[in-house]
Amino acid sequence: MILILKSNVTDEQVQHVLDRVESLGLKAHLSRGTYRTIVGIIGDEEKLRALPLHALPGVLDVIPVLPPYKLASREAHPRSSVVEVGSAEDCRVKCGGGHLALIAGPCAVEGWDQMQRIGRAVKQAGAEILRGGAFKPRTSPYSFQGLGEDGLKILRDVGGEHQMPVVTEVTDPRCVEMVDKYADMMQIGARNMQNFVLLTEVGKTDKPVLLKRGMSATVADLLMSAEYVLSQGNPNVVLCERGVRGFDAKVTRNLYDVAAVAAVKQLSHLPIIVDPSHATGQPALIPPCALAGVAAGADGVHIEVHDRPEEAKSDGAQALLPDQYAKLVIQIRQLATLLTDSNAVDEGATQ
Amino acid sequence: MILILKSNVTDEQVQHVLDRVESLGLKAHLSRGTYRTIVGIIGDEEKLRALPLHALPGVLDVIPVLPPYKLASREAHPRSSVVEVGSAEDCRVKCGGGHLALIAGPCAVEGWDQMQRIGRAVKQAGAEILRGGAFKPRTSPYSFQGLGEDGLKILRDVGGEHQMPVVTEVTDPRCVEMVDKYADMMQIGARNMQNFVLLTEVGKTDKPVLLKRGMSATVADLLMSAEYVLSQGNPNVVLCERGVRGFDAKVTRNLYDVAAVAAVKQLSHLPIIVDPSHATGQPALIPPCALAGVAAGADGVHIEVHDRPEEAKSDGAQALLPDQYAKLVIQIRQLATLLTDSNAVDEGATQ
Amino acid sequence: MILILKSNVTDEQVQHVLDRVESLGLKAHLSRGTYRTIVGIIGDEEKLRALPLHALPGVLDVIPVLPPYKLASREAHPRSSVVEVGSAEDCRVKCGGGHLALIAGPCAVEGWDQMQRIGRAVKQAGAEILRGGAFKPRTSPYSFQGLGEDGLKILRDVGGEHQMPVVTEVTDPRCVEMVDKYADMMQIGARNMQNFVLLTEVGKTDKPVLLKRGMSATVADLLMSAEYVLSQGNPNVVLCERGVRGFDAKVTRNLYDVAAVAAVKQLSHLPIIVDPSHATGQPALIPPCALAGVAAGADGVHIEVHDRPEEAKSDGAQALLPDQYAKLVIQIRQLATLLTDSNAVDEGATQ
Amino acid sequence: MILILKSNVTDEQVQHVLDRVESLGLKAHLSRGTYRTIVGIIGDEEKLRALPLHALPGVLDVIPVLPPYKLASREAHPRSSVVEVGSAEDCRVKCGGGHLALIAGPCAVEGWDQMQRIGRAVKQAGAEILRGGAFKPRTSPYSFQGLGEDGLKILRDVGGEHQMPVVTEVTDPRCVEMVDKYADMMQIGARNMQNFVLLTEVGKTDKPVLLKRGMSATVADLLMSAEYVLSQGNPNVVLCERGVRGFDAKVTRNLYDVAAVAAVKQLSHLPIIVDPSHATGQPALIPPCALAGVAAGADGVHIEVHDRPEEAKSDGAQALLPDQYAKLVIQIRQLATLLTDSNAVDEGATQ
Repeated sequence: MILILKSNVTDEQVQHVLDRVESLGLKAHLSRGTYRTIVGIIGDEEKLRALPLHALPGVLDVIPVLPPYKLASREAHPRSSVVEVGSAEDCRVKCGGGHLALIAGPCAVEGWDQMQRIGRAVKQAGAEILRGGAFKPRTSPYSFQGLGEDGLKILRDVGGEHQMPVVTEVTDPRCVEMVDKYADMMQIGARNMQNFVLLTEVGKTDKPVLLKRGMSATVADLLMSAEYVLSQGNPNVVLCERGVRGFDAKVTRNLYDVAAVAAVKQLSHLPIIVDPSHATGQPALIPPCALAGVAAGADGVHIEVHDRPEEAKSDGAQALLPDQYAKLVIQIRQLATLLTDSNAVDEGATQ
Repeated sequence: MILILKSNVTDEQVQHVLDRVESLGLKAHLSRGTYRTIVGIIGDEEKLRALPLHALPGVLDVIPVLPPYKLASREAHPRSSVVEVGSAEDCRVKCGGGHLALIAGPCAVEGWDQMQRIGRAVKQAGAEILRGGAFKPRTSPYSFQGLGEDGLKILRDVGGEHQMPVVTEVTDPRCVEMVDKYADMMQIGARNMQNFVLLTEVGKTDKPVLLKRGMSATVADLLMSAEYVLSQGNPNVVLCERGVRGFDAKVTRNLYDVAAVAAVKQLSHLPIIVDPSHATGQPALIPPCALAGVAAGADGVHIEVHDRPEEAKSDGAQALLPDQYAKLVIQIRQLATLLTDSNAVDEGATQ
Repeated sequence: MILILKSNVTDEQVQHVLDRVESLGLKAHLSRGTYRTIVGIIGDEEKLRALPLHALPGVLDVIPVLPPYKLASREAHPRSSVVEVGSAEDCRVKCGGGHLALIAGPCAVEGWDQMQRIGRAVKQAGAEILRGGAFKPRTSPYSFQGLGEDGLKILRDVGGEHQMPVVTEVTDPRCVEMVDKYADMMQIGARNMQNFVLLTEVGKTDKPVLLKRGMSATVADLLMSAEYVLSQGNPNVVLCERGVRGFDAKVTRNLYDVAAVAAVKQLSHLPIIVDPSHATGQPALIPPCALAGVAAGADGVHIEVHDRPEEAKSDGAQALLPDQYAKLVIQIRQLATLLTDSNAVDEGATQ
Repeated sequence: MILILKSNVTDEQVQHVLDRVESLGLKAHLSRGTYRTIVGIIGDEEKLRALPLHALPGVLDVIPVLPPYKLASREAHPRSSVVEVGSAEDCRVKCGGGHLALIAGPCAVEGWDQMQRIGRAVKQAGAEILRGGAFKPRTSPYSFQGLGEDGLKILRDVGGEHQMPVVTEVTDPRCVEMVDKYADMMQIGARNMQNFVLLTEVGKTDKPVLLKRGMSATVADLLMSAEYVLSQGNPNVVLCERGVRGFDAKVTRNLYDVAAVAAVKQLSHLPIIVDPSHATGQPALIPPCALAGVAAGADGVHIEVHDRPEEAKSDGAQALLPDQYAKLVIQIRQLATLLTDSNAVDEGATQ
């Protein structure tokens, strides 16, 4: 931690700052420059974060030198984590560390027939994990809110039939146990990324968690939310970039942030996938943005697929048709191969 | 609802659109221009929102003509609502419709002594509602998380002693009943603004709800979240502007949006207050921003006050000292009087 | 300047960093913590800014400790600057240091009659400086581009007749000399805030410059643009907040940033005014936002006024009517008096 | 154009709106719904844009149905444009319509030796167009401002020697003629994207223009700026995405918007390239973001390369080393081939 003091700081104020730091058993390192006095603090930054250093008289700025997320940081855990989704041996899917996971399905579970048709279609197209929402967090209280436990059962059955693990969103801490029973992966939606109560609950399970980035979350915010889950003892966190709030929603809806994907790969060992469906909301933009995410280093792609978009009860307009999805999967796989090969060449070259 | 069709839309596609609209019992109004064909739809827009019109072939754009929030809109309810906080007759505080409510207190309830000292100080300074957090939604799992029910009891007692209703945050749907027992007003924090499960729970009570705007929430998003509470039967919603995510966090932290306050007064009958403490996070900016919020039309001001900021367990650096707060209250009251008088003159003149 | 080194930095890299710093005649101060090594650099930061320190192997982060704007900073110039607009003795208007300047007029000079009518109206309402655009930077090449020099002449004449200094925008470095001849204050529009060629040209004159904040400019960016003008020898810069790019343009157009006004008063000695007309673009929001700006500490208010908005050739929809403006001026003056009085009391109290 | 009228609009106001529209020789189409009255206007939207329809009493909202850019729109010009850069027959480079252009070089021309070394390196790596700045628009007036005409000469010579067309930024309308003499392509920087004076000047030449997206520019803003150039008669515009202002600058600098690339391909026929160097500013993020841009459909990639970053006079920290660039070019070419092949298969399949 570094403290930058005000230009008009008094000697008493400097001494007070040093006293406070040392009262915590840490060492302070004073450096007087021409225009500014700086205090470097050596020791456990966690202790310091608890202290309102900004409130000390004479302090202009407080600059942490370590990331506030410890368990999520690559510094603490240099090797990329691999998260396994699915418990049955014949349908376990890996995400991270070179394993690209393809997740697809409709926005909402609308009924058995719909899930069967779409489940079969995405399986044939090459998807590995089936998605479908049973609890829908809708902006309007008047919109379709999902089928609840009935939806979970349908999802579970259809997943089983097609040997695909299933992922579905959980929105209520009181439902975590129920969702955990049916799902192979629990999704925390963007609007709940900082619902710390919910994060703590899913952290108490050992079920893989798909944690979507909130619309105004910085990369550090996202990693801190992952830290909530990790700190409860659940190491199975997969992050998801799905666009942040931008100023041109009419054209690109959310601002799809592929540089954040590349940055997360530097800062954290956790896998991160992309969701171009929610990011762009337009079928014409989804395939190029899916490929862009993979090119940026994503460990998976999440796509909404519906065979009858104009009848969908939720987000029909942003769904790809099964044919469009099938074509996209081919391109994604080719691109992933290209990247793996060229990185392999590269690693070979640097040995 | 207006549909703008693509320039290359076919006659069959147009017919299909018209059929879908009429199948819902609504009337479609076709208008062919030189470059675009437009379909105006007459009837209940709610029905149409359920339909993924964007997914219909040939549709370029879908433009609603009514706001999606019905209960929250001023169109449906032209007179400004007044929300009363506090059940005891001697300490009931009005917010809205010309009544300016002053809320103050520390970020977190840290203990009995701290609350007593600060409660007394803000009461003397002129605050009417006492705040204090017992459940703290902290970005880091390692930060102080609040005293829980013990904190609620302290808050309740101190409020009673100083004849001030109390407001505190609720973060967990399982705790709504408990918080409802102690608090006169329940706060939904910015990070939970779209926690629809929690909104639904507080909507089932009749306790006033202080709903803070999320960091990436549009004004319509905020009003839709209010709609969740209202649609459950609880009409006592007070909105709160506390800054949205901007690009200059180093200097102004969140982007304090006073124009949204003025806009909400146009679009909705619900009271809206401002929270310059969380918006700016800097004592030097809080008083001018508090006054700016009142000048823009806010129905109340929420300020964090602490008498020993450098010992605060949460957000000490953004607290005003009691003296600073007392001075600000005088200015706020003078400004409110000025605005009331000049509006009274204005209304007299227009009669 | 502080350098934070990477956790895996080698001793050679550390030495290389120290060598580079010392080769510039500066002193480096090494501090090895448990997890990070930090280098404090003492001496002229300006020299360091020229060096790509980020590019040195082993450097993780570079943290300046001084603001990059020297002439604009309050640290260098503690007393608030007062800028005088207008050369004739009978119509000189002060802005800053407690002097509130009211600027009003139509978006564009459309002709002699229009300027006469509006000039007279805003003068009667209490405006002190007359605005009117002769060179209009329009988003579309097909929109009205202004009357050019003819417009300048009309503005000059009407200003003279009503004893008001005039302000008008300059968009082309080739026109600075011409605009300087007619105008008492030259406006640099938001889209040209980082047109450094233009800033340099107006900096070579001694004419007051009204520098509008760009839509994506941080406060530091704005002050750096002011620094361009100041560094050429022209000390007469007035800043202007007019809203930045936000995500809710439909409701509040640009995001009107009053906290930036309060922050600029801390960071710089330069006067700053507000322009709620361009910020919000809606007559219903302009008066509350104007008052909010003054409450936040603005040194002036810029408002577009038109007596026949539906005939205006530019931005008619955002103009106040003369009557609306007259009422607003009364409120602004009352508010300014209230703030001056309460600050006077305050200063008296602290002596 | 569609007008949505206020719910309390009077019959006179409706009539007044209809009269205004018809006075322009356009046809109005009135549609009264249950809650709203709507006016569809048929005819030349350009005429309507000139009219401040928002200012008409009773008008709530004005919704254009056509894009405001005519020459830049794909609707007007369905076939993708190809821009050719370079006049000499042996070094003409195509951009757009399936031709991927690779632009590389240092941020600034610093001298003959530096340009020679880097020019040779990027040519060998596979770059086709050489970049180098002679006029540097720097945020600080105290930073290196470029070598001016001397820089242009060096760039011209080095480009000629390596048979590469050259691109360089023009910042001053008075220098367009000079830059046009030396450069094969003139760049308009992000900060000048709405410097309409400058756009008009380059529009009067027939030299290819590289138009960078401003930091707060919507896609429509970008296309309107292109329209300025096109409307002057210069059809040779290449757009460039280089990141917009976001809220997480510490981690990803600007927010690199690949969805905008995909959207531009839908909305416009103009080529668009990406500049991950300026978008991210970090060598570790540049290669993944470059590939992401190509995957999203970009027609070229602009990368800053420097062989001695720590000595660079401008932006050294964001430059790739020649080796890093060479490796990236191989990946870009492979990816481009993959995309071309799969699209070819696709087009074959749809026939």
